[in-house]
Amino acid sequence: MTLMTPKEYLESIKRDVDLYVLGEKVKDFWNHPIIKPSINTVMKIYELAQVDEYNDLLTTKSHLTGDIINRFTHIHQSTEDLIKKVQMQRLIGQKTGCCFQRCVGYDAANALYSITYEIDKKYNTNYHEHFKEYWIEVQSQDLMVDGAMTDPKGNRSKRPNQQSDPDMYLRIVEENDDGIVVRGAKIHQTGFLNSHRAIIMPTLALRSGENEYAVSFGVNTNAKGITMIYGRQSCDTRKMENNKLDIGNFKYGGQEIFVIFDDVFVPKEEVFMKGEIEFTGELVNRFAGFHRQSYGGCKVGVGDTLIGATSLIAEYNGVDKVSHIQDKIIEMIHLNETLYSCGIACSSLGHQREAGNYEMDMLLANICKQNVTRFPYEIARLAEDIAGGIICTMPSEADLKSKEIGEKISKYLATCEDISVEDRYKVLRYIENLTMGVSSVSYRTESMHGAGSPQAQRIMIARGANLEEKKKLAKEILDIK
Amino acid sequence: MTLMTPKEYLESIKRDVDLYVLGEKVKDFWNHPIIKPSINTVMKIYELAQVDEYNDLLTTKSHLTGDIINRFTHIHQSTEDLIKKVQMQRLIGQKTGCCFQRCVGYDAANALYSITYEIDKKYNTNYHEHFKEYWIEVQSQDLMVDGAMTDPKGNRSKRPNQQSDPDMYLRIVEENDDGIVVRGAKIHQTGFLNSHRAIIMPTLALRSGENEYAVSFGVNTNAKGITMIYGRQSCDTRKMENNKLDIGNFKYGGQEIFVIFDDVFVPKEEVFMKGEIEFTGELVNRFAGFHRQSYGGCKVGVGDTLIGATSLIAEYNGVDKVSHIQDKIIEMIHLNETLYSCGIACSSLGHQREAGNYEMDMLLANICKQNVTRFPYEIARLAEDIAGGIICTMPSEADLKSKEIGEKISKYLATCEDISVEDRYKVLRYIENLTMGVSSVSYRTESMHGAGSPQAQRIMIARGANLEEKKKLAKEILDIK
Amino acid sequence: MTLMTPKEYLESIKRDVDLYVLGEKVKDFWNHPIIKPSINTVMKIYELAQVDEYNDLLTTKSHLTGDIINRFTHIHQSTEDLIKKVQMQRLIGQKTGCCFQRCVGYDAANALYSITYEIDKKYNTNYHEHFKEYWIEVQSQDLMVDGAMTDPKGNRSKRPNQQSDPDMYLRIVEENDDGIVVRGAKIHQTGFLNSHRAIIMPTLALRSGENEYAVSFGVNTNAKGITMIYGRQSCDTRKMENNKLDIGNFKYGGQEIFVIFDDVFVPKEEVFMKGEIEFTGELVNRFAGFHRQSYGGCKVGVGDTLIGATSLIAEYNGVDKVSHIQDKIIEMIHLNETLYSCGIACSSLGHQREAGNYEMDMLLANICKQNVTRFPYEIARLAEDIAGGIICTMPSEADLKSKEIGEKISKYLATCEDISVEDRYKVLRYIENLTMGVSSVSYRTESMHGAGSPQAQRIMIARGANLEEKKKLAKEILDIK
Amino acid sequence: MTLMTPKEYLESIKRDVDLYVLGEKVKDFWNHPIIKPSINTVMKIYELAQVDEYNDLLTTKSHLTGDIINRFTHIHQSTEDLIKKVQMQRLIGQKTGCCFQRCVGYDAANALYSITYEIDKKYNTNYHEHFKEYWIEVQSQDLMVDGAMTDPKGNRSKRPNQQSDPDMYLRIVEENDDGIVVRGAKIHQTGFLNSHRAIIMPTLALRSGENEYAVSFGVNTNAKGITMIYGRQSCDTRKMENNKLDIGNFKYGGQEIFVIFDDVFVPKEEVFMKGEIEFTGELVNRFAGFHRQSYGGCKVGVGDTLIGATSLIAEYNGVDKVSHIQDKIIEMIHLNETLYSCGIACSSLGHQREAGNYEMDMLLANICKQNVTRFPYEIARLAEDIAGGIICTMPSEADLKSKEIGEKISKYLATCEDISVEDRYKVLRYIENLTMGVSSVSYRTESMHGAGSPQAQRIMIARGANLEEKKKLAKEILDIK
Repeated sequence: MTLMTPKEYLESIKRDVDLYVLGEKVKDFWNHPIIKPSINTVMKIYELAQVDEYNDLLTTKSHLTGDIINRFTHIHQSTEDLIKKVQMQRLIGQKTGCCFQRCVGYDAANALYSITYEIDKKYNTNYHEHFKEYWIEVQSQDLMVDGAMTDPKGNRSKRPNQQSDPDMYLRIVEENDDGIVVRGAKIHQTGFLNSHRAIIMPTLALRSGENEYAVSFGVNTNAKGITMIYGRQSCDTRKMENNKLDIGNFKYGGQEIFVIFDDVFVPKEEVFMKGEIEFTGELVNRFAGFHRQSYGGCKVGVGDTLIGATSLIAEYNGVDKVSHIQDKIIEMIHLNETLYSCGIACSSLGHQREAGNYEMDMLLANICKQNVTRFPYEIARLAEDIAGGIICTMPSEADLKSKEIGEKISKYLATCEDISVEDRYKVLRYIENLTMGVSSVSYRTESMHGAGSPQAQRIMIARGANLEEKKKLAKEILDIK
Repeated sequence: MTLMTPKEYLESIKRDVDLYVLGEKVKDFWNHPIIKPSINTVMKIYELAQVDEYNDLLTTKSHLTGDIINRFTHIHQSTEDLIKKVQMQRLIGQKTGCCFQRCVGYDAANALYSITYEIDKKYNTNYHEHFKEYWIEVQSQDLMVDGAMTDPKGNRSKRPNQQSDPDMYLRIVEENDDGIVVRGAKIHQTGFLNSHRAIIMPTLALRSGENEYAVSFGVNTNAKGITMIYGRQSCDTRKMENNKLDIGNFKYGGQEIFVIFDDVFVPKEEVFMKGEIEFTGELVNRFAGFHRQSYGGCKVGVGDTLIGATSLIAEYNGVDKVSHIQDKIIEMIHLNETLYSCGIACSSLGHQREAGNYEMDMLLANICKQNVTRFPYEIARLAEDIAGGIICTMPSEADLKSKEIGEKISKYLATCEDISVEDRYKVLRYIENLTMGVSSVSYRTESMHGAGSPQAQRIMIARGANLEEKKKLAKEILDIK
Repeated sequence: MTLMTPKEYLESIKRDVDLYVLGEKVKDFWNHPIIKPSINTVMKIYELAQVDEYNDLLTTKSHLTGDIINRFTHIHQSTEDLIKKVQMQRLIGQKTGCCFQRCVGYDAANALYSITYEIDKKYNTNYHEHFKEYWIEVQSQDLMVDGAMTDPKGNRSKRPNQQSDPDMYLRIVEENDDGIVVRGAKIHQTGFLNSHRAIIMPTLALRSGENEYAVSFGVNTNAKGITMIYGRQSCDTRKMENNKLDIGNFKYGGQEIFVIFDDVFVPKEEVFMKGEIEFTGELVNRFAGFHRQSYGGCKVGVGDTLIGATSLIAEYNGVDKVSHIQDKIIEMIHLNETLYSCGIACSSLGHQREAGNYEMDMLLANICKQNVTRFPYEIARLAEDIAGGIICTMPSEADLKSKEIGEKISKYLATCEDISVEDRYKVLRYIENLTMGVSSVSYRTESMHGAGSPQAQRIMIARGANLEEKKKLAKEILDIK
Repeated sequence: MTLMTPKEYLESIKRDVDLYVLGEKVKDFWNHPIIKPSINTVMKIYELAQVDEYNDLLTTKSHLTGDIINRFTHIHQSTEDLIKKVQMQRLIGQKTGCCFQRCVGYDAANALYSITYEIDKKYNTNYHEHFKEYWIEVQSQDLMVDGAMTDPKGNRSKRPNQQSDPDMYLRIVEENDDGIVVRGAKIHQTGFLNSHRAIIMPTLALRSGENEYAVSFGVNTNAKGITMIYGRQSCDTRKMENNKLDIGNFKYGGQEIFVIFDDVFVPKEEVFMKGEIEFTGELVNRFAGFHRQSYGGCKVGVGDTLIGATSLIAEYNGVDKVSHIQDKIIEMIHLNETLYSCGIACSSLGHQREAGNYEMDMLLANICKQNVTRFPYEIARLAEDIAGGIICTMPSEADLKSKEIGEKISKYLATCEDISVEDRYKVLRYIENLTMGVSSVSYRTESMHGAGSPQAQRIMIARGANLEEKKKLAKEILDIK
């Protein structure tokens, strides 16, 4: 049995890292109040994997070792696997109400699995074997792995090798018999800090002359030369206050890390691409494709909790039977289930790669993500509509519990009999949390930009749509030669 | 081999029916120019079933007889069957650009298959056996079957038995040892005329005291007492003109029939429900569910042809490289594939009924249809945007071919070199056909109301969403008891 | 008193024109059943101008002659005039439910009034005086005038002088002491046939070397060399049927004319621009601006009738108290009044030109029209939702009145007591008329493309928005130098 | 000259109030870092009123005294006044990028002005004279006045007098010859703290038996018995940090106060309604109407700064020439100017009340606000799209300026040459501020709920739309009796 317990996981990440939060270097980051909820969230994944009820979704059998493994370390072997991935993600979103950080490496591994196979086939390299060995370690130790793609990009109107600073895209700066040395940064890294390892990938399709940027490798997240800076999120310091309710989701949360690679050495066994520029575009596409599929699960799960909270507040306010309220909740559900439909559809129509693993349908995964850049915003807007202005005019928990004025506030925050003011308080803060608080970062902005900004999907939709075939359909009906 | 050829089908529907078109009784309806395209469309289904390339989608093996049958007569035996149904529908939509009329009976049969089983289980009736016998005939003769549900409904604020005229909902008016006599009407019947048989079902969940309305049965479409009146559609008489291009889609089309049952006798072997009011709601839901799934296929196929035609006209006008044109086409594709995702998802997550057959996921089928009530309208709007005002200011084909002025018109309708004016003419008329012409009836209004109006889906979404569970998710995260 | 009566107007347009309808040359076009409703509509304008209640909107005092004139011939002298223009247009839309054709020349005259003044100022030409003389004739005889702008454009990726056929944009082909000779075509001409005169303008901003295309002039609509071809509209031939109700709006309607200029002579007194390319862009903008303002009135009036018809059908069906129905009607009103707000706002913030006349705010007029390319589609969609599928499955009027089956159809089309089946029939056909029938051409497609396609407004919005100023606002708040 | 300088204003609000912030009683609130930006914002209003360029918008002549006054204390005397109000609000929104708090009392005064006149007319009371005297003081001292309407409402399914706690709506608990004593709370009070005075109004149309709730009066904001609790806003404590940039808008901001009235005495001269229940509905409507008009100005001004900031970041990233970026910015402008059009239109079509003052068009003011509940959300979504994920993954200012890692971060946050990293940092934080930070409270949630939640507008739209008249229009066209 290869599954770590939550406690084992927690112990395993207690390691020295070079991390800065709000301008200060942090020791024992696992105790930092801003960071703690993000660790709780990952622990929840390890916890759920131990629960019988969720076994089928959270665990599976490795095709590499035959062992039972956490599904987040699995290489998909069927469309059923692809569907279960999305269902697992919805489940964990429902249990945590935030970004749970472990998908990125999962998606990176599944993309690299087939790409390394295809590079090897062309170039007689042995990336695929190396990658499998690397991944067997991950599976057998139930490690959490980040996948890192986004470079800072500098001036977006210029190519990597045209930037004033050549490091705006991560690149190989040195190479020797033992391995390579890389420099650059990977930003927007949700899962880096809480992961044991990370898989680094290039961020765009590279061209001739840009070979130094065509690099993919595995790396320990506390490797020498790696500096992490914690991203600011809306309302982050509420987690550092004495009272806990104001943060909204006081148990769970995501995080974002800005990661700098200052001449980091990578041994050659952990290098999975080195200069093969013609495979970079496809690596980006496959990783992004898997990750766009993911959002049809995780954001839907978070959406479920927001719909639930919104229904609760309607009930607490005594308006749950009002027709326009019910209709808006139906609309929230409709949009949320449309996202889920897209997540399921691209999984269900997945196909097998030559390497043997299964991949989601590329066009439909992009359709999925494109909708994710729109619907959570509308779901959030409807939640704000139903919750009322109080989500951003309500006094603090400190006021609510103050000796001088707490009672007065409680008097006026009361609604229906039998409804606890504190419960109402919690639900309102939870809605604030997802619409403009700390988790709005993952529910809104990450929905927009994670796995690629909207325009990236549109380009892929144009490519996948086979417009020439559609023209031919019209021509056939119209007898046009 | 049980498959009919297109020609055999054509011969088989040449029978006497009591049909009125534009106020006149019609003989030999299969020669009527308004009706002909709708027959061509059905023939196309029979034709495609004979083509090797489409075998896998258009045909399958009957679980009742083991014979190869047309998939439109199949009872789903797996989620794969459900997925293939949607893919087949997309294919035929792509080939015809209109409503092909054969889904309704297919969906009715799949709903009745499990409902009859469940009624029998409760009441020891033998509807299920009767239905299977009835359906084996359909399969073995490759018959086209309509499914008829919608009653005229009279005053919508009153129940069936409160109407001033009790016939506003079809009902049993007499019963004897041999069978029953029914009276009423079924309206919006797309496939009735071109079908050999029809399955009649109640249109809503009935209550105690409304037993006479709880009736389902099979009937030949030319049975004594049945009168059909052809519905008017936008631009229908263009099909009667000498020139053929103005109609837009000069080969294929749908139709709508208003069917009156004037004391029609039904032998007891063909009665599949009689008074079991508590099963009416579920019969409506299952039929509607299957039919809402269908729209995630057929409308997508039609959408493909509209996207193709729109791309063609952009090319013909010399604007296909313009960024806002490309972006609008991407949006059309995005919306169309979102519909497809919904069709696939509710199929992929289907489940088995006690009777052994498979049914789509009810919630997601309603999500699918709800989107169908919106996106085709936006796709059509974008098509009109790209096509330009010419789709409704362009002179007639008669003008274009007139000796006096044809040349002048051709001169001014020319665009790019190598583009034939007639081809441009055809494509523009095709876009008109789908956005406001005869096929806008199926692409727009049927998308809105077919398989139930939008509000019907919203009620089902509310029911299927399990809001209490969602509230519990929020409570668990927030430690609310 | 310079106002024509409806009857005088009718007599005045009885003149020989070179007109083709459905491939046939037409004599006495005023008797043609397809054309008649469009004449009725114009007559309605003349009629309303005689009604005391509407005096204030329909008439005003000429600043040129001091006489009371029809407002459609007025040159705006204040923002109040601009507002009244929009209110008059809404009124006539409400009375006719269709495009009333007389705005185009009104808008053209107001644009030319200031442009001719400005050309004269630069070049010492005397276009402005000529135009005033020309327009005094129009005012004093209460003439209807068309404004014609849109050329066929050929290959849209090429400039006028790069087309294979130089006539794809109307141009001067000859010039002498008496005047000029022009060749080309103006398409999408709503008001040409029913107008006494037309003002011709170029369709885009012209550049050096394209001077022959920079031409504006007045012309009689029956001038030698002008050929008109009647555009096909959805359901147009229903107007030729014996029964009148199927057309939906059996009194009023619009039309679209394809106009060819085959070497038409124009005397120099009626030429208002000739080669002054640098004024073409501004002429297009001003005319389009006025016309984009117009749509904030006329389409709103038509929308009012559609909202009214939709409310009626909800009442006839017994669902007018249902909350989702009421909410959808509120949404229709909301969208319609948003359009009106845009029409009013660009009028209210109008400004005076050097020539003395008033012009609407250019940015807001483009905002107005951009919304018009969207909201009528959504209003129409909601109307279809509420009306039900019957709008396109209902038998013809001939069936309804047939001796054999009329009674049966009436039985099943009945809804609430006291509601006449014929009234319900009329209302359903009216909704069909505006959503997919003959008036959908003006309510939908003309809303999209009339006064310029959506992208044309976006270009103007970008120009008018003063983005640099907005950047400066952000910089000031943020102390960015 | 009655205008206060910013400095005089600041001095004038330095008074003892009973205020709690984050659980602590606050002394000298004008020095509190969370509160300071909101005071700066009000000071900006006083500052702009002294600037010649803005004289025409910011000041006007009192119809009560003939003196030059700040427009925020004006009673509208014409539609021009109404238009200038909206333009002034847009201007101040542009200068501050947040809610400037002074409109509420302005709108309350304009509503009460006509309502007191009408009560007096019916009851021979002398509210109107009292109100005028009260308001002359406000004008002559250039006071800032809040308008307070929203009660806590308790169980929304019950009327005020059915609540378990009768104080859930503010009410008269005692009355004597000198005045009245009131108890209750007014929540969501944006301008209370920074105002010298407040006008209290009932929150809904009251019925017989609810007379004690029908009360309106003026009160000093530091009156005995008034307790204020400061509402928590997203990211509020960033204002208390050492670094100033992270807050986004480091100069200006809004605030929200929860105000409790604990048996506050009001002298009878400052009571403007007492028990006249039949005028409560109309008072609510008129106040809400004026305030819904306001949003067509202030939110548009804030939107201008967000569009500006978004354009800046596109430029800083080197993507300002990319077509999809430009198109999204055009869409932002389009939506923003549509809101402005609505604000202008309801002003332009205003009308005079019997009391002599002018009021905006009620229907169009509700149309305006309904759009405000939608478009800022979409504008914000587009801003997030263009800004990129960095708005919520970016390290803190403390990191950026840290000795250890500041340089590294600067290296990787650089984009185009000549673009300062700090400027980019500021703009990104500004976009965060408006989309999820402290000003998202006013730009998003206040847009939703301020001046009444969306459903409140829909009810008013239904009332104002005159549906019967619209039905009649359809009937006239269709000859339906």
